[in-house]
Amino acid sequence: MTTFPPPDFSDPEFTAFPDAEFAPAPTDGVLPDGFFSTTNLPTFVKVRGQWIAPREPRMDSGLVLDRDGVIWTREGRRIQRGDLVAVGDKEDGSQGIFVQTHLVPPGADADAFAFMSSEVSREKPIDYSTMARLLVDERERGGYPVWVTGPALVHSRARSDMSWFISQGFVGALLAGNAVAVHDIEASIYGTTLGMTNTGEITQGGHGLHMRAINRVRAAGSIANAVAQGIITDGIMYSCVKHEIPFVLTGSIRDDGPLPGVITDMLQAQDAMRAHTIKATMAIMIATALHAIATGNMLPAFVQLPDGAMRELPTICVDSSEFVVSKLKDRGTHQAFGVVTNAQDFMHILRIYVERELESRAATAQHATSGAATP
Amino acid sequence: MTTFPPPDFSDPEFTAFPDAEFAPAPTDGVLPDGFFSTTNLPTFVKVRGQWIAPREPRMDSGLVLDRDGVIWTREGRRIQRGDLVAVGDKEDGSQGIFVQTHLVPPGADADAFAFMSSEVSREKPIDYSTMARLLVDERERGGYPVWVTGPALVHSRARSDMSWFISQGFVGALLAGNAVAVHDIEASIYGTTLGMTNTGEITQGGHGLHMRAINRVRAAGSIANAVAQGIITDGIMYSCVKHEIPFVLTGSIRDDGPLPGVITDMLQAQDAMRAHTIKATMAIMIATALHAIATGNMLPAFVQLPDGAMRELPTICVDSSEFVVSKLKDRGTHQAFGVVTNAQDFMHILRIYVERELESRAATAQHATSGAATP
Amino acid sequence: MTTFPPPDFSDPEFTAFPDAEFAPAPTDGVLPDGFFSTTNLPTFVKVRGQWIAPREPRMDSGLVLDRDGVIWTREGRRIQRGDLVAVGDKEDGSQGIFVQTHLVPPGADADAFAFMSSEVSREKPIDYSTMARLLVDERERGGYPVWVTGPALVHSRARSDMSWFISQGFVGALLAGNAVAVHDIEASIYGTTLGMTNTGEITQGGHGLHMRAINRVRAAGSIANAVAQGIITDGIMYSCVKHEIPFVLTGSIRDDGPLPGVITDMLQAQDAMRAHTIKATMAIMIATALHAIATGNMLPAFVQLPDGAMRELPTICVDSSEFVVSKLKDRGTHQAFGVVTNAQDFMHILRIYVERELESRAATAQHATSGAATP
Amino acid sequence: MTTFPPPDFSDPEFTAFPDAEFAPAPTDGVLPDGFFSTTNLPTFVKVRGQWIAPREPRMDSGLVLDRDGVIWTREGRRIQRGDLVAVGDKEDGSQGIFVQTHLVPPGADADAFAFMSSEVSREKPIDYSTMARLLVDERERGGYPVWVTGPALVHSRARSDMSWFISQGFVGALLAGNAVAVHDIEASIYGTTLGMTNTGEITQGGHGLHMRAINRVRAAGSIANAVAQGIITDGIMYSCVKHEIPFVLTGSIRDDGPLPGVITDMLQAQDAMRAHTIKATMAIMIATALHAIATGNMLPAFVQLPDGAMRELPTICVDSSEFVVSKLKDRGTHQAFGVVTNAQDFMHILRIYVERELESRAATAQHATSGAATP
Repeated sequence: MTTFPPPDFSDPEFTAFPDAEFAPAPTDGVLPDGFFSTTNLPTFVKVRGQWIAPREPRMDSGLVLDRDGVIWTREGRRIQRGDLVAVGDKEDGSQGIFVQTHLVPPGADADAFAFMSSEVSREKPIDYSTMARLLVDERERGGYPVWVTGPALVHSRARSDMSWFISQGFVGALLAGNAVAVHDIEASIYGTTLGMTNTGEITQGGHGLHMRAINRVRAAGSIANAVAQGIITDGIMYSCVKHEIPFVLTGSIRDDGPLPGVITDMLQAQDAMRAHTIKATMAIMIATALHAIATGNMLPAFVQLPDGAMRELPTICVDSSEFVVSKLKDRGTHQAFGVVTNAQDFMHILRIYVERELESRAATAQHATSGAATP
Repeated sequence: MTTFPPPDFSDPEFTAFPDAEFAPAPTDGVLPDGFFSTTNLPTFVKVRGQWIAPREPRMDSGLVLDRDGVIWTREGRRIQRGDLVAVGDKEDGSQGIFVQTHLVPPGADADAFAFMSSEVSREKPIDYSTMARLLVDERERGGYPVWVTGPALVHSRARSDMSWFISQGFVGALLAGNAVAVHDIEASIYGTTLGMTNTGEITQGGHGLHMRAINRVRAAGSIANAVAQGIITDGIMYSCVKHEIPFVLTGSIRDDGPLPGVITDMLQAQDAMRAHTIKATMAIMIATALHAIATGNMLPAFVQLPDGAMRELPTICVDSSEFVVSKLKDRGTHQAFGVVTNAQDFMHILRIYVERELESRAATAQHATSGAATP
Repeated sequence: MTTFPPPDFSDPEFTAFPDAEFAPAPTDGVLPDGFFSTTNLPTFVKVRGQWIAPREPRMDSGLVLDRDGVIWTREGRRIQRGDLVAVGDKEDGSQGIFVQTHLVPPGADADAFAFMSSEVSREKPIDYSTMARLLVDERERGGYPVWVTGPALVHSRARSDMSWFISQGFVGALLAGNAVAVHDIEASIYGTTLGMTNTGEITQGGHGLHMRAINRVRAAGSIANAVAQGIITDGIMYSCVKHEIPFVLTGSIRDDGPLPGVITDMLQAQDAMRAHTIKATMAIMIATALHAIATGNMLPAFVQLPDGAMRELPTICVDSSEFVVSKLKDRGTHQAFGVVTNAQDFMHILRIYVERELESRAATAQHATSGAATP
Repeated sequence: MTTFPPPDFSDPEFTAFPDAEFAPAPTDGVLPDGFFSTTNLPTFVKVRGQWIAPREPRMDSGLVLDRDGVIWTREGRRIQRGDLVAVGDKEDGSQGIFVQTHLVPPGADADAFAFMSSEVSREKPIDYSTMARLLVDERERGGYPVWVTGPALVHSRARSDMSWFISQGFVGALLAGNAVAVHDIEASIYGTTLGMTNTGEITQGGHGLHMRAINRVRAAGSIANAVAQGIITDGIMYSCVKHEIPFVLTGSIRDDGPLPGVITDMLQAQDAMRAHTIKATMAIMIATALHAIATGNMLPAFVQLPDGAMRELPTICVDSSEFVVSKLKDRGTHQAFGVVTNAQDFMHILRIYVERELESRAATAQHATSGAATP
């Protein structure tokens, strides 16, 4: 348990600081403009040269000086007209108010007390504009974005959005497990995933449909053959085959089938994945703990540019729960940027933002061209 | 622990069933068309009049009859060309295969073994079309959709989408807590929520901004005054005031402030909420456990139509975690339909779908009108 | 959206029902004994032969008959002394109160409206006594309980409790991944897991310790060799080797190393696991989605007893989140019984209950023996 | 996106560093003792005075120098006997290996790359010994530990453990909502909570039992009266009344009833809570987001000792999900120490550890006494 003394106020640093200023509350329940808003940390206020600790400390309150020279920590609603309230917005003593930061966790910055400082939270805004810009930048400069996806992407019916990204050149390589391909192919052949329809209904006898889908691809000999024979007519695997985007399907202990082409030996599978991660210039991991951590293990946190400089390798990790992102960081992928949402919604909105970014760049380019053409 | 005997196969029902059919596997690792896909339940196959239990039972496999009359449960990949595999898709004995359902939980339907049967899961597709249609229907028939929201809606910057729904007539009443209004107003005045910017950055001194926002509204005397005085210039509360949509802000033990107009007595607050729930024809609850359960407590599961018939009161509950929806159901709001996603993304996509639905109806209406106008 | 008419009250079934009874409230805010507690479903009350729908329906309230013959749904706190309140506890009309259940989800039982009916929730009590009894029963009758564990078991330092279960004969076989063994062995050699100490501190240079642990076992040639050479001196793998409990370590795409003995080909690994699941008489799955679902895929829901009867195969699934258990059920393992807690705490309490169960049986046995000896 | 140059190796700091050392791999797939274990950060190795960046960077690997002077990042399993592998455990250049830390998030310490550095995770060990010691210390020195609990504590049947802590003097004050008392009293009178039994079963007609429990206490006039009249015979509220431990029950918008004594006005309720938080010397918050954040808002992060020194106010926050703890920290209660587990299990194990701590201190005291008595 951390223990520490109050500051040594005889130190010249403190004697040089001015007294705090106080202003009267304009009316009951209202603090004066510029009031000092408290934290939950040890706080001292300079009054006539003395540093006084306010009583009954708590955060989000004002500091009221009473006639006896006592300072009280008081909620705004309890302020009465004319109460003398400390004003200021500095916590370093320069305005006569000093906040001790011994209890702030190591690593927090100078402005020690802050809200919303967690790394990953469903309560943080998702910056789709930046992600869209990064993706379009990558395509423009010939980058190699590696996408890593889990089966929830398919169950939740983000198949068509994923196919769009593949067909439009935003995917360097797709890394996934057997299940992603199985559900995607079941959806193409039967319209269901594990027997569940697009609207979440369970179908009669549906529990066998993924096995029938696998069996048909096994009979065809490969996913590419099944596409060529018209068995698979849309979706993620179809788009990879049609657009010649490389994919690695790695096996796992929970696989059904597996589909032909799934690499069942984990050492071979790691080598196959790493052939792509060493080329990666960006990584997007969606709704998979297993494959995200596997990829994170192999992925450098940086890309070396032609001029020798380093830049961060943008790594986006999307999951319904903060836990997967924290786990990824706990396995060393500190550069991961967490997005806490549903895979279906993420894909849908990201596509809309990428489409907007493309339109905006096209408009700018046309403007520049037509402008250049103007004599 | 459930214990039960095997079926009485001397019963006429069973003696009337035919023998199961078997077909040879066309090649190694491939099952014949129409193969029976196993479950993990007790299973019996009729061979030459005898009901035989397959050995080594498991789900997702084929049933192979060997030369000794033994039936094995075998994964597709272990099948060899020519193996005799049971075919059929009925589990009721009518094709010579019978599955016992004693272990299926009560309430499951006849087709007992199924995947994806949980009530709420992030792995289920979200049916935005249906929700959009419901909302537009409600507006057309003059319904009273009650929206119930938590602060994550504001932190995640779905403010503008929420404002759009208010301004377009999709909100009968808004039920929320003090925090929703505080963050919304902080965002309007300072561009932050709890000191966090639109892109998730923490601002210097930002921890006091929500207190300053509250103080300004307290000085103005009411939210409506603060709108009238140009202190609040956009957002959720602004839109409610401008469009005269009723709102109830209820206090809670964790409130800062509170803002003027927040009902701090819980019995009065419940009465104020209930004045809206008794009129409700639909409910949309987003990112709040406390207010969702409070509203669920007051909300009938049905609406009585003018002709006396009853219809379900559509109740949508959106949260990042399955837990809140389950908790709501566990408190009796069984009609709640759960959507597991992020509030920001939900609002954004729902708005897009509602806009599309409106366009589609407008097009249909115009078509009908122009058609009618044609002589 | 479900729509349905009110009941046909001219039906003889309804005409035969008596009028509802009413009793006066004894004082303000207090309902009479035996008051009828409302649900949120359509409700009808028979008064002088007429079936009346109470106004302003909601759950958890009383039904008050006013002088005009109108019935109001009213919260207990709003009741006034002398108000006539409906009494009864039947919802089937037999006490003059009828509740329509069209809106109750299919599968719910007759007593349709209930709280706390979700299948898996952190809010449900964990019945350690029953689990302990099952485990001791299994040991007594020579059962084959299969344990399936994830790495959180090791990070959270349930190693010693798991070792105890192994050494005391409660484990038929252990199924796990490379990571469980890696962390367990790192803890035995260096006292850390991924460089984190027993109390959760991070050690200087600790990120390399799991690699050093793997390297030492690879140098020894096998886990058994490393135990024999005194490199591994305690923990889960040590106990399995010492007590000759079979284990299967299956590889995955995210493995470091792997350790010698880990089966890296998934098809071989599935076959190795299944050699144990076909013998299983109970399954305990702790803190692993991947291996729990893999085992669930292979596990029959039942055990056939020597006399031909079937009994459920007890399947316990422990996880910090409801999601893993729901996912397991969604993949067909409906018999899974979910326990939502932390792996460390689960193991610790389960051990205490098993120790108590053993003491209690020993005491009973001794009592029986000494009793028998008494003339 | 962070961009930065490689280090300036002409700097004297770097020229002073020695070349890295290399050792041959003893056998295939085994690294030499003391091998350098890589991170995912930019890394440079000094070979014959030149700083070389290894190719194909990734974490958890060795660095192999080939005959052409190229250094490869290679997994241990791919090492061949005789490969020259870099050795060392320093990342600061002092052993000829330098790791750039520009990409490590601000605030991380010098040893920048680490695993398991998240603040709150279900994968971290729970240190019950320390918590037990803190609680016993508090009791010995007359501290004022404030307990804050949510209803899951009661549903999960930790009632008797909570009662034990109350009766044994470990609770200064109890802060909770109406629901905790309602469920606790329903359990005392009817043996159920919301109609659910101790073993999680739902009872016929159980949905009305909490309303009947509330009604009985309302009829008695107060919780204390209901205890005195023998209506409430055990549990949390019973123990508070019997042992005269102060409690504050605060209302919320979702309350049933409420019970007599629940403070329904939130401003009065905050004042009542704060009367305890200003005396608090420790805080234990279990299974409640609402009340934990409310208490956190009011709680200083520190206690001032008689001698003027400050010490941290130990604040323990227990929840099934990391989210509640993160949310609490995001609202400024940075000192909160998170325990991710089930309330029932937490209470049970904490009690066992406290009992052990008491026994151990008693034994020590007795030993000291008897030792002192010896001449």
